Amino acid sequence: MTYVGKKFPNLAVDAMNEMGDTFKLNVLEEAVKNNKKVLLFWYPKDFTFVCPTELHAFQAALPEFDKRNTVVVGASCDTAEVHFAWLNTAKDNGGIEGVTYSLLADSNRNLARTLDILDITDVRFDEEIGLDMLEGDNVTYRATYLIDEEGTVFHEGINHMPVGRNVNEYLRLIDAYTHVQTHGEVCPANWEEGKEA
Amino acid sequence: MTYVGKKFPNLAVDAMNEMGDTFKLNVLEEAVKNNKKVLLFWYPKDFTFVCPTELHAFQAALPEFDKRNTVVVGASCDTAEVHFAWLNTAKDNGGIEGVTYSLLADSNRNLARTLDILDITDVRFDEEIGLDMLEGDNVTYRATYLIDEEGTVFHEGINHMPVGRNVNEYLRLIDAYTHVQTHGEVCPANWEEGKEA
Amino acid sequence: MTYVGKKFPNLAVDAMNEMGDTFKLNVLEEAVKNNKKVLLFWYPKDFTFVCPTELHAFQAALPEFDKRNTVVVGASCDTAEVHFAWLNTAKDNGGIEGVTYSLLADSNRNLARTLDILDITDVRFDEEIGLDMLEGDNVTYRATYLIDEEGTVFHEGINHMPVGRNVNEYLRLIDAYTHVQTHGEVCPANWEEGKEA
Amino acid sequence: MTYVGKKFPNLAVDAMNEMGDTFKLNVLEEAVKNNKKVLLFWYPKDFTFVCPTELHAFQAALPEFDKRNTVVVGASCDTAEVHFAWLNTAKDNGGIEGVTYSLLADSNRNLARTLDILDITDVRFDEEIGLDMLEGDNVTYRATYLIDEEGTVFHEGINHMPVGRNVNEYLRLIDAYTHVQTHGEVCPANWEEGKEA
Amino acid sequence: MTYVGKKFPNLAVDAMNEMGDTFKLNVLEEAVKNNKKVLLFWYPKDFTFVCPTELHAFQAALPEFDKRNTVVVGASCDTAEVHFAWLNTAKDNGGIEGVTYSLLADSNRNLARTLDILDITDVRFDEEIGLDMLEGDNVTYRATYLIDEEGTVFHEGINHMPVGRNVNEYLRLIDAYTHVQTHGEVCPANWEEGKEA
Amino acid sequence: MTYVGKKFPNLAVDAMNEMGDTFKLNVLEEAVKNNKKVLLFWYPKDFTFVCPTELHAFQAALPEFDKRNTVVVGASCDTAEVHFAWLNTAKDNGGIEGVTYSLLADSNRNLARTLDILDITDVRFDEEIGLDMLEGDNVTYRATYLIDEEGTVFHEGINHMPVGRNVNEYLRLIDAYTHVQTHGEVCPANWEEGKEA
Amino acid sequence: MTYVGKKFPNLAVDAMNEMGDTFKLNVLEEAVKNNKKVLLFWYPKDFTFVCPTELHAFQAALPEFDKRNTVVVGASCDTAEVHFAWLNTAKDNGGIEGVTYSLLADSNRNLARTLDILDITDVRFDEEIGLDMLEGDNVTYRATYLIDEEGTVFHEGINHMPVGRNVNEYLRLIDAYTHVQTHGEVCPANWEEGKEA
Amino acid sequence: MTYVGKKFPNLAVDAMNEMGDTFKLNVLEEAVKNNKKVLLFWYPKDFTFVCPTELHAFQAALPEFDKRNTVVVGASCDTAEVHFAWLNTAKDNGGIEGVTYSLLADSNRNLARTLDILDITDVRFDEEIGLDMLEGDNVTYRATYLIDEEGTVFHEGINHMPVGRNVNEYLRLIDAYTHVQTHGEVCPANWEEGKEA
Amino acid sequence: MTYVGKKFPNLAVDAMNEMGDTFKLNVLEEAVKNNKKVLLFWYPKDFTFVCPTELHAFQAALPEFDKRNTVVVGASCDTAEVHFAWLNTAKDNGGIEGVTYSLLADSNRNLARTLDILDITDVRFDEEIGLDMLEGDNVTYRATYLIDEEGTVFHEGINHMPVGRNVNEYLRLIDAYTHVQTHGEVCPANWEEGKEA
Amino acid sequence: MTYVGKKFPNLAVDAMNEMGDTFKLNVLEEAVKNNKKVLLFWYPKDFTFVCPTELHAFQAALPEFDKRNTVVVGASCDTAEVHFAWLNTAKDNGGIEGVTYSLLADSNRNLARTLDILDITDVRFDEEIGLDMLEGDNVTYRATYLIDEEGTVFHEGINHMPVGRNVNEYLRLIDAYTHVQTHGEVCPANWEEGKEA
Repeated sequence: MTYVGKKFPNLAVDAMNEMGDTFKLNVLEEAVKNNKKVLLFWYPKDFTFVCPTELHAFQAALPEFDKRNTVVVGASCDTAEVHFAWLNTAKDNGGIEGVTYSLLADSNRNLARTLDILDITDVRFDEEIGLDMLEGDNVTYRATYLIDEEGTVFHEGINHMPVGRNVNEYLRLIDAYTHVQTHGEVCPANWEEGKEA
Repeated sequence: MTYVGKKFPNLAVDAMNEMGDTFKLNVLEEAVKNNKKVLLFWYPKDFTFVCPTELHAFQAALPEFDKRNTVVVGASCDTAEVHFAWLNTAKDNGGIEGVTYSLLADSNRNLARTLDILDITDVRFDEEIGLDMLEGDNVTYRATYLIDEEGTVFHEGINHMPVGRNVNEYLRLIDAYTHVQTHGEVCPANWEEGKEA
Repeated sequence: MTYVGKKFPNLAVDAMNEMGDTFKLNVLEEAVKNNKKVLLFWYPKDFTFVCPTELHAFQAALPEFDKRNTVVVGASCDTAEVHFAWLNTAKDNGGIEGVTYSLLADSNRNLARTLDILDITDVRFDEEIGLDMLEGDNVTYRATYLIDEEGTVFHEGINHMPVGRNVNEYLRLIDAYTHVQTHGEVCPANWEEGKEA
Repeated sequence: MTYVGKKFPNLAVDAMNEMGDTFKLNVLEEAVKNNKKVLLFWYPKDFTFVCPTELHAFQAALPEFDKRNTVVVGASCDTAEVHFAWLNTAKDNGGIEGVTYSLLADSNRNLARTLDILDITDVRFDEEIGLDMLEGDNVTYRATYLIDEEGTVFHEGINHMPVGRNVNEYLRLIDAYTHVQTHGEVCPANWEEGKEA
Repeated sequence: MTYVGKKFPNLAVDAMNEMGDTFKLNVLEEAVKNNKKVLLFWYPKDFTFVCPTELHAFQAALPEFDKRNTVVVGASCDTAEVHFAWLNTAKDNGGIEGVTYSLLADSNRNLARTLDILDITDVRFDEEIGLDMLEGDNVTYRATYLIDEEGTVFHEGINHMPVGRNVNEYLRLIDAYTHVQTHGEVCPANWEEGKEA
Repeated sequence: MTYVGKKFPNLAVDAMNEMGDTFKLNVLEEAVKNNKKVLLFWYPKDFTFVCPTELHAFQAALPEFDKRNTVVVGASCDTAEVHFAWLNTAKDNGGIEGVTYSLLADSNRNLARTLDILDITDVRFDEEIGLDMLEGDNVTYRATYLIDEEGTVFHEGINHMPVGRNVNEYLRLIDAYTHVQTHGEVCPANWEEGKEA
Repeated sequence: MTYVGKKFPNLAVDAMNEMGDTFKLNVLEEAVKNNKKVLLFWYPKDFTFVCPTELHAFQAALPEFDKRNTVVVGASCDTAEVHFAWLNTAKDNGGIEGVTYSLLADSNRNLARTLDILDITDVRFDEEIGLDMLEGDNVTYRATYLIDEEGTVFHEGINHMPVGRNVNEYLRLIDAYTHVQTHGEVCPANWEEGKEA
Repeated sequence: MTYVGKKFPNLAVDAMNEMGDTFKLNVLEEAVKNNKKVLLFWYPKDFTFVCPTELHAFQAALPEFDKRNTVVVGASCDTAEVHFAWLNTAKDNGGIEGVTYSLLADSNRNLARTLDILDITDVRFDEEIGLDMLEGDNVTYRATYLIDEEGTVFHEGINHMPVGRNVNEYLRLIDAYTHVQTHGEVCPANWEEGKEA
Repeated sequence: MTYVGKKFPNLAVDAMNEMGDTFKLNVLEEAVKNNKKVLLFWYPKDFTFVCPTELHAFQAALPEFDKRNTVVVGASCDTAEVHFAWLNTAKDNGGIEGVTYSLLADSNRNLARTLDILDITDVRFDEEIGLDMLEGDNVTYRATYLIDEEGTVFHEGINHMPVGRNVNEYLRLIDAYTHVQTHGEVCPANWEEGKEA
Repeated sequence: MTYVGKKFPNLAVDAMNEMGDTFKLNVLEEAVKNNKKVLLFWYPKDFTFVCPTELHAFQAALPEFDKRNTVVVGASCDTAEVHFAWLNTAKDNGGIEGVTYSLLADSNRNLARTLDILDITDVRFDEEIGLDMLEGDNVTYRATYLIDEEGTVFHEGINHMPVGRNVNEYLRLIDAYTHVQTHGEVCPANWEEGKEA
């Protein structure tokens, strides 16, 4: 089920920050309580090669998101301990040292199952064992959510595993949505801030 | 359920083209039989104001999509007759005269229900009538699908009603995915054709 | 289920009028609150050829319906935006410019499903997709309802797609029913106002 | 469920003719085997006052229906014996002497239940007795069906109890439909044979 | 289920009398409120040949039933209108003119279904139509009920269609039961009033 | 469910005759194989006072039943041993000495349950015991069945406990039914052999 | 389910005594209210040959049971009327004249079904009739219950049909149990009153 | 369910003999294959005080059972190891040294559950644990079964815990049953071999 | 389901001590009420050869467990009577004389089923008997539970039948867990008290 | 359900080795095909502090396991990528550099769910979201399995999170089980190779 036009799910998830603190982060509350927009992006796994470039790209663009009153949150199904190890691994070694935004550690998949973005391609019942066996790593696709100050999702997108995201497109989408919020006008195709709507 | 990483649904839907012909179009077959990529974009309604700008923008970029072996298909839940009337309405009058790609007329919502992109925000059972009553216009969100030559979805995205799409981003996603197909390399964040991966 | 002899369903539906206003219209309330009879006629689709002749015919007969304390309402499953575009299309171009009564825009089919007048000729469960797939355009037949001042349906009729309606027959039915209301007499076959019952 | 656009139900029902013969009549076969159109009209009860005027009116118009290759069949839920008694009652005594077309005697309501035209206004389960108790006389409304030579219904209409039918309107509907069959043109509103479409 | 030894069902049914009045008659109340016995006899159809002889025979014996504080009620599934027509048909013409007791017009079969005396010999589900189709005319057998002043059934009997009833046997049964009520003695076989028990 | 108009149930039941032999008797086969009519009468219990008078009355009329090609069978739910004891008890002592027809000993109630003639007036589930507890002695009412040579029931009647049967009425019913079989005429009310129909 | 160690079922059953009185007897109450032990013995049928010897043997031992504060009750599924007839049959004729204890007449089998001692050897569903048909006479085995003053069963035993019971063994069991009640000692095998435990 | 009149359950159970061998023993096969009668007696627990007296009593009577072609088998739910320990405990120490017949070790209760002789007095579902919890030790009552050479049970009896059995009574029952087998006569009450039947 | 990290089940079970007293022991309460740790060990059967060595080993280590505030409890599914017999059997004869800790006698398997440690290797439904038949002796594996002062399980282990336990390992596990309780440090592999963590 | 005494589940799971290769490893096949014992140990998470000491301890003991024909396999629910990163982290930095045995990467939890060793302490249905939400990190406890050459589990044990394992105890258990395999003798408590059994 798409969450566009609806409230983001009201769930607290374990998270890790650069300080090594484990804490609970509820994305919906993050938006509503702080009156912020939120960009939440999921990547499949820590310690892979395409993922850190995305994490660094979002880090580099943090000032732009900040100008737009937008909090960035990363997320995977790895544990907080693994996030911390990766945060402590130098960029040159494939690590994400220098990332300062929070990372969800959704190891119990509560949120990922709710959003239905896990790479389970098949479920087959094993008669002998008496349980469903899953096909797939049970990690998330590259899914991205843009959430407004009231917790409503205004964009969601999913890229197949090997294709990285374009940070500027999210800035454009935030600008367009903010324009609608401010001016009450809909934004046509290819609209960009400063260009004529 | 996300279709990323899976085959696009195998369904034939009524469609209209600029010649006024009504025909059946099966997006999956379109991709597989012709060995083409497909960009399928949904918009809420004919004869509204933000929608034609998107349709014109995709029309303007058709040569670029063509270079990338990509067919563009538009789609809404309006009837073929309404599509034809809109195709015959001048751009200055809010029409889409000049659009040459096909438009799905999914009036029975078979495909839109399958993709789960209708704006039904609530369903309530009416005891007196004995049927489910729907909240919402039962039209689609601005959903976009990128499908490869084997019919596999490699991107899906949904924008909330008032926010138009960015055609260039889809060109970038197609380039990135083609790069992966060709070179077997994953594409990092912000990757663009010609820029260093 | 026939609604003859029963109250018309109590449902508010989006509607459009010649001024371009979108509003909610509840046919049952329209009858009961204003102490009016209502003639509600459904046609399959905007921007087709047989339909506008019916809409114009009802428009031409409006003074006669008015004399009989009867409100005329048209209806299809097209959106309000499409109705407005059609209302702004000249009669010579197949439009319905000049129509002044309201048009229901039952795009979510709440009312059409309640009346069971959609052209779904078959429903088949698609095993692969896991949903029911509909055969037919999911638009309405040419169904007509006559409703009295208490909201009770006293005539319903459905014509197959290609056969237009006869406006005079509805005037005769209204007259006959009014005669029964006034004189407490049943009206025999072929009864007409002024002719001997 | 409306039968417009679908085959009439394939059911044989007891019938009575003026000769006092009881026989089985299957309306669908009547149309298809004899390559005829059929007009089937239901009335609530034998030996009432408004009903015989309708039966006489259809009798008077038989030559016109015959010209149009159309068989007329009347129907109620009374028994064949009661039909015969009524056929033997003089017109002046409220009888239908002189009627020559067949009358269905659907005493087991197989066909009337299929068409869903019985005047059951409520069903309530009687706890003590352990059965559903019906509200209403369990007789039919004034329902009319026009069926073409292939058994497809092209018009159905239902009048509330006290309002008699207009025989000419059915002749017009048959003409319009025949026109469509012959010329492949749809018939606009108020179309009449000989008038310009 | 047999009703012998139990209360007769508590149901009001439409009835017709010789005056042409339609009214509701509840057999159980008729017995209990008036402190009367009731003989209720069902026959298959109005306007048949064996039935009127039974109705006349009960009429002829009315003074005997009256002496025994017993009300006679006839019943079929025909409508009140048909009963009235038959009551107005002379005996010589196969009518029941002269009958003065009330006749139930159980056209919705509420009571006949409760007593389970309809001639439905088979029920088969029609897959195409989606409803149960009945075999048989859905009229009643020749069933007879004797009910005492407290509403308890003390005899029920059913004859196959072609065999008429013997009025004297019911007088004997009433006498025997009354003897038991009065003397508290059981009545042996062939007991008759005035003969030695 | 009434068995009138249907075949008598095809069941073999223990029976006892005057010789003290226990054997299986299947009433349906008795009729069909021997091409006989059967009168089967049930009484509540052996060794009561009203019952033997009925058994003696049927015995006395055996020659009349024999003339009419009719076999008489008595039945209760007592055991064959009890029947034999009663058959050996002199009439003066309340016994049935001299009875020569067979008596069903339906102690397992297979047939009585099938005919639904047991005096169970209530069934209540005992929570503590976990079984249904029956109200009533679980013996039969005074039920009588007339069965023709093909096994079809043409009369069934039930008397409340204290009222004995009238043997002559059964002879009259057999005569009337035989008359119908022979002459193909229905028998009116009060018909008797030799009297004018 | 065995009732040993549990309370005897709390059920009132019809019973007959030597005086010919029919009354309700609740074995559990009989024990508890009167502070008595109860020996309840079941036999298959009245008027058989092995059964009366058992009834006479218990009668002969009544003084011994009385000394032990024990009430004897006999039981079968025959009716009270049959019990009375048997009680009035001389011993020489296979009767039980002289028996003075009460006999349960469990004709509705409420208690026998609760104890699960009926000789039903099979139950088969008859498709044609739609009911379960029982194999066996539906009478009881030779089951015996010893119940103490609190209603608890301390022995139950069942003999196959042809084997009579040994009255002395029940006296021994009562003595042993009474010894346990009095001395709080368990009784070893072959224990007898007066012999050393 | 009583097994009297039916075959003993066909189950193999672990058993122990005086030699310390563990083997499978199927009581039904023991009877049928060896053409023997079997006396099977259950006692609650090894190493209690009343139980060994019963085991010794059966041991003492073995020659008598042997004369009657009868095998004795003891049984409890203790394990074979415990049986062996008890068999090796001297009689003076409460042991059963000297017992030579086999002992079933029904520790999985397959046979005891089948016979329904376990002392479970209540079963209550524990919500927290999600399983049924049993009241009682889950050991057997003092149940005794006599089985003939065809495996049919001809006696079953259950004594409450503290009451020992009477070995002579079983010899009497075997004699009586053998008498019936040999002479085809039923045995009256108190019958004993050599005494007049 | 593993109980590690959860409260031990709240169940009272029969137990036996060296004095021969039978009492109820609830392991959870034993821990919580007395503020003790508990070591609960299950063995398959009394009177086997490997088992007593385990029981003696735990007895020998009792002072060490006592020092660590830990109560030892043994358990099998044998009865209290069998435990007592074994406690009274000299060590040289394979007995456990000298054991002073309590032994659970879980003969109804309430606790063993809750812990799911019974050696049932298969369950098959016996059609003829209508019950599940178990494969296996229905005794427990060598399962061991370590429970802390709040009733939480911090170790569970199960050995296959023939492999005895190592008492020292349990002392080490208790030390390690106590170290965590005291110092809030986790204990690495091979940690032992006194050695450096 | 315990797997002791049963075959280890037949499932292939992703695994990582020191070379950085991802491959499928089926523990059951590993044992059976190679005729090896297997020690499989689970730990909660990569990159924690207690876990690496266990992994190093097993590494140090590899020669001992090898001598005993035993393969060591580690396992957690982390991904293969994370395992590889940890394998490449120096021991001084909390890594497991130097570990040479394979590590299961059961990220889809197929095997961990089968073994039922995940730390889910509660499951609650979220009404709003319509899915079960899990309490706990969804990682495994410290569970250990010893599997013999036929794939049968002969020991399983689970430690609560903070308590590390004792490698020597597993060597002892393997020795004891091997002793049983070789000598057919059971091993008493505290048995150690070379010490007297």
